[in-house]
Amino acid sequence: MSSKLLLVIVGIPGVGKTTVLNAAVEILVSRGYVVRVLNYGDYMLKSLISRNLVRSRDEIRRLPLQLQREVQALVADDIRREVDETPGNEKVVSFVDTHAVIKTTTGYWPGLPKHVIERLSPDAIIVIEASPEEVLSRQLKDRSRYRADYADVNLITELLQVNRCFAIASAVLVGASLYIIHNREGRVLEAASELVNIVNNLMR
Amino acid sequence: MSSKLLLVIVGIPGVGKTTVLNAAVEILVSRGYVVRVLNYGDYMLKSLISRNLVRSRDEIRRLPLQLQREVQALVADDIRREVDETPGNEKVVSFVDTHAVIKTTTGYWPGLPKHVIERLSPDAIIVIEASPEEVLSRQLKDRSRYRADYADVNLITELLQVNRCFAIASAVLVGASLYIIHNREGRVLEAASELVNIVNNLMR
Amino acid sequence: MSSKLLLVIVGIPGVGKTTVLNAAVEILVSRGYVVRVLNYGDYMLKSLISRNLVRSRDEIRRLPLQLQREVQALVADDIRREVDETPGNEKVVSFVDTHAVIKTTTGYWPGLPKHVIERLSPDAIIVIEASPEEVLSRQLKDRSRYRADYADVNLITELLQVNRCFAIASAVLVGASLYIIHNREGRVLEAASELVNIVNNLMR
Repeated sequence: MSSKLLLVIVGIPGVGKTTVLNAAVEILVSRGYVVRVLNYGDYMLKSLISRNLVRSRDEIRRLPLQLQREVQALVADDIRREVDETPGNEKVVSFVDTHAVIKTTTGYWPGLPKHVIERLSPDAIIVIEASPEEVLSRQLKDRSRYRADYADVNLITELLQVNRCFAIASAVLVGASLYIIHNREGRVLEAASELVNIVNNLMR
Repeated sequence: MSSKLLLVIVGIPGVGKTTVLNAAVEILVSRGYVVRVLNYGDYMLKSLISRNLVRSRDEIRRLPLQLQREVQALVADDIRREVDETPGNEKVVSFVDTHAVIKTTTGYWPGLPKHVIERLSPDAIIVIEASPEEVLSRQLKDRSRYRADYADVNLITELLQVNRCFAIASAVLVGASLYIIHNREGRVLEAASELVNIVNNLMR
Repeated sequence: MSSKLLLVIVGIPGVGKTTVLNAAVEILVSRGYVVRVLNYGDYMLKSLISRNLVRSRDEIRRLPLQLQREVQALVADDIRREVDETPGNEKVVSFVDTHAVIKTTTGYWPGLPKHVIERLSPDAIIVIEASPEEVLSRQLKDRSRYRADYADVNLITELLQVNRCFAIASAVLVGASLYIIHNREGRVLEAASELVNIVNNLMR
């Protein structure tokens, strides 16, 4: 392969994306993989702070949309470069932890629009899903972490459908495969091993 | 911002798009906004007539598809230019009233394909939706306006889903946000104020 | 029209795509059409064998993804050229028999990604669908043809939805119309005549 393995991992708040990802990373590392997890939001923040455009995460959404788009693209270039420059040739895998769609006051904002997904050029987009009821239950358990406006099963159902459709539109732009992992209650390890299998299959 | 605010507004026949839009425009104007509503179909017709390609709206769908696509693109350029040349800098908002998808005898025709959406380059795509039952009821009340072939709840449900998916694919191409407004029976003002809020939030 | 009529025809395994297509071809030929059916998978295999990259169909999925993508694009160019060079000007119609999405061990792989659909530049994408129960029943009748992992109504429902969404994302890229044909049990001729009607309408 001409470039290192890059998997984009997305999921709406409350599906358990971070839990599944961490469990998969642990397994992969124990099997000799070199694994990197790159958080798109962290890269956005770092990039904007270094350009003196914001001082904190909360300020990002107040920036003009056009500027946000430009920084989104620069960050995608940075991430792709970092992934390709990771030392080692075999068994190196990078996960980009991000969103296919972000709910904002002006609507569903694409997290992987054309100008981002083409720069990232991932091998696969992994969509973590869970049942709307489980997503709601997780959100109600941790009110500090989730925004109140998500707390409605109909809205979560809509968000899950919309999220999947955004991810598919992004996958079609770059010919990446799209894998939907259903993270079932109490079966995180099952979801994590699906993710491990994808990596194994992509590595063959 | 480098260019004027442009919102694309779409919805399948019978969701109440025009009613919601008109109510929102009234509120915005009363709050000091300069509002323009540009109807894509009208611009298409005007452009085709001025090129002597058609004499009436009915003739459009008989034109070769390739020609329709070319005029679609020219019209998008015209609209974007007109929006950007609207006098005034603050509180100017333009709505482009169009369709994400148009039902034709050869299938669902994209109203915002790549060559159109990239030229329009909207800040947001607003999708007006209603329940399939309400859409059907509106269509049955006004047989002169709606085509008979819509009059089936399953077909309307399919059309609503397909419409949303087309709008998402278009949004991903330009990184525009996508806002779904549910226009509930007898609650047009609620839907209209959601639209007003989006404009306010985009203006911040 | 500057180029010959090209219709892409897709559908998940078990919807009866081949049956509907064959029935439509028979009708079209009896009405004086010159019809070509080009199978994308066959073209892929031929192209890979002639480049000494594989010897059999099973080896394709073991090729590096980047290489598969490149051959996918070359094949699309070949097909478009062949279609345009078909002798005769009127009543020539070519069907490209392929998939909007292919289920692989690394996820749903786009069969009509940007680099393919832009090269094919079809007039329409035809999606053949059937109810999940019928798809399952067809798969259970012919275990030799279908992979066991499809045999689950929930999975088939997901695949039908995902397939439609992939096809829409591809249609938006080229402004092709998208026609969904519901192939109902025991009503193949109805589905076939819908397909014949699309051809007639595109020819007008």
